[in-house]
Amino acid sequence: MVDEFYMLLAISEAWKYQVLTYPNPAVGCVITDKNGAILSINAHKKAGLAHAELEAAKEALSRLNPLLKFPQNPNELHTFILHNHQNLLKDSTLYVTLEPCSHQGLTPSCAELICALRVKKVVIGTEDNTKRAKGGSEILKKAGVKVAIGICKKECKELIEPFLSWQKGSFSFFKLAMRLDGSYDNGIITSLLSREFTHKLRDVCDLIIIGGETLRIDKPTLDSRLINGKAPDILICSQKEIDKSAPLFNVKNRKVIIQNNIDIPKKYKNIMMEGGSNFLQAMRNKVDWFLIFHSNLFSSAEGRSIKTNLNLKLIHNSRIENDIFGWYKQINN
Amino acid sequence: MVDEFYMLLAISEAWKYQVLTYPNPAVGCVITDKNGAILSINAHKKAGLAHAELEAAKEALSRLNPLLKFPQNPNELHTFILHNHQNLLKDSTLYVTLEPCSHQGLTPSCAELICALRVKKVVIGTEDNTKRAKGGSEILKKAGVKVAIGICKKECKELIEPFLSWQKGSFSFFKLAMRLDGSYDNGIITSLLSREFTHKLRDVCDLIIIGGETLRIDKPTLDSRLINGKAPDILICSQKEIDKSAPLFNVKNRKVIIQNNIDIPKKYKNIMMEGGSNFLQAMRNKVDWFLIFHSNLFSSAEGRSIKTNLNLKLIHNSRIENDIFGWYKQINN
Repeated sequence: MVDEFYMLLAISEAWKYQVLTYPNPAVGCVITDKNGAILSINAHKKAGLAHAELEAAKEALSRLNPLLKFPQNPNELHTFILHNHQNLLKDSTLYVTLEPCSHQGLTPSCAELICALRVKKVVIGTEDNTKRAKGGSEILKKAGVKVAIGICKKECKELIEPFLSWQKGSFSFFKLAMRLDGSYDNGIITSLLSREFTHKLRDVCDLIIIGGETLRIDKPTLDSRLINGKAPDILICSQKEIDKSAPLFNVKNRKVIIQNNIDIPKKYKNIMMEGGSNFLQAMRNKVDWFLIFHSNLFSSAEGRSIKTNLNLKLIHNSRIENDIFGWYKQINN
Repeated sequence: MVDEFYMLLAISEAWKYQVLTYPNPAVGCVITDKNGAILSINAHKKAGLAHAELEAAKEALSRLNPLLKFPQNPNELHTFILHNHQNLLKDSTLYVTLEPCSHQGLTPSCAELICALRVKKVVIGTEDNTKRAKGGSEILKKAGVKVAIGICKKECKELIEPFLSWQKGSFSFFKLAMRLDGSYDNGIITSLLSREFTHKLRDVCDLIIIGGETLRIDKPTLDSRLINGKAPDILICSQKEIDKSAPLFNVKNRKVIIQNNIDIPKKYKNIMMEGGSNFLQAMRNKVDWFLIFHSNLFSSAEGRSIKTNLNLKLIHNSRIENDIFGWYKQINN
């Protein structure tokens, strides 16, 4: 198959962890052996865990030698692979959505690792131009590894848009959950697994912004209890009085800010908004992306529905059980 | 990678042609070489065109020998491949969602072709128990081909549900297009490519059923003009008088039936329903599947929205440009 095929597999894997990798970029990696058989499809899952290349190398090696016992800690894993790869990945091809990092960050340089594995060719989606990490492809070339850059470049650049926004300042997305008919009245809308995904997102966000209406009608807690994660700070934008007995005020280690405008405090970098029609209407030109869920139900109840005008570009879509969801951004934004 | 990985690629490819293969089943096929590298991912696209296995063999051979010039006609293609495969697919593995056919139908037996190619192993999703086609795996085994049956069986059985319904009588699905907010008021909702997909579906259906309200409000033509396809017969279910000057009455070679009940005439086998809230409410327990589109727009106009109760299982989801769509069926149906 052509390079694009493997790169799309890597992109698709990376999307499973979009935003969850904060402050790191979402990155996917595929390794094929010297004959072109796929050895691994993997991704970076969370800051502090292994980079995509390291995860993919581990998966490939464990397939080729099931007796290898890998350490958990990513630094130890890196060292272990350097000493125990047995040239099993010699002449393999590695597809990675973002240029392998050149630097020692929380984990050691991926470019150095790839050279040590004696990979024959590295196919890169898009360059890493960040000051800290750039230069990976030069390290590879100097070691005699063939390098191709720019395969599925548009898709790979889109994948790291949140990362580039974090680098420059902040990234924000508006999460919306509806039934198939667009209704979103009180009560649970999506499946438990979809809500766990939302809690994973909350766990990596430093601020959730809601409107006063959501607080009054839904009385949410807005924590990450389903995954035992953290509770981000809350900003409530409301021109009316706020009832401070609401559950979200009773969460430890959380700051709650109340203001009568929709300005976003500068100190926050990874920002989620949750709400309904009026809040979406107010915030729609302030957010970078939209994360829109549709559950598997039609409900004839007189549920609220969204009244706003938006023309969106679908960036990525997927499913969780019977729910569908898409990451969108405004066209011409 | 494990067998399930390749089977899921085959399943995903087959879904692109779901219903479009009428009266044949949707079938996908992946071929990997003796080293496990993917040579082709293909599917049966339309009755009278090549079966999935033949399409996949052609794609694999054209990759291995770009000089081969394949004939278009599937019977000629079958014969050509029998005489020109040059043992290039010897010891390959073939993954196919449905047991290869044993019989000479519109095209010759796929099982016989696979034996001639000297494929080493055939991995089958689900058995073909239809009288005409069954027995393919026995032919393979007798020729010394390794056969594994039942990989991703649940998904592969679901894929051929429309086919099994056609075999027993008829299959019907309700197509619904909404904006992200659930609105579906007058005018175009989805993109041109999505509408072309709908026209391809109409082209293979023998009956479209609508309610009187759709006729009065939308005044649709309900043909396949975007793809120069055929116009299926129409059944209008309405208790009110019908305006026979509507555009759908002016289409040649079409029968229009008007009745004041929702009984479906027995002679039709592949049936599409299109409409809005009231018609969905009326027909929801009469249809097998639902095909639900959500476009990329929110529209604050006071659009109609669906008022019914349905609890659906998502069978398959995908996208066309910025539109998302899912094939659904009722849970416990």
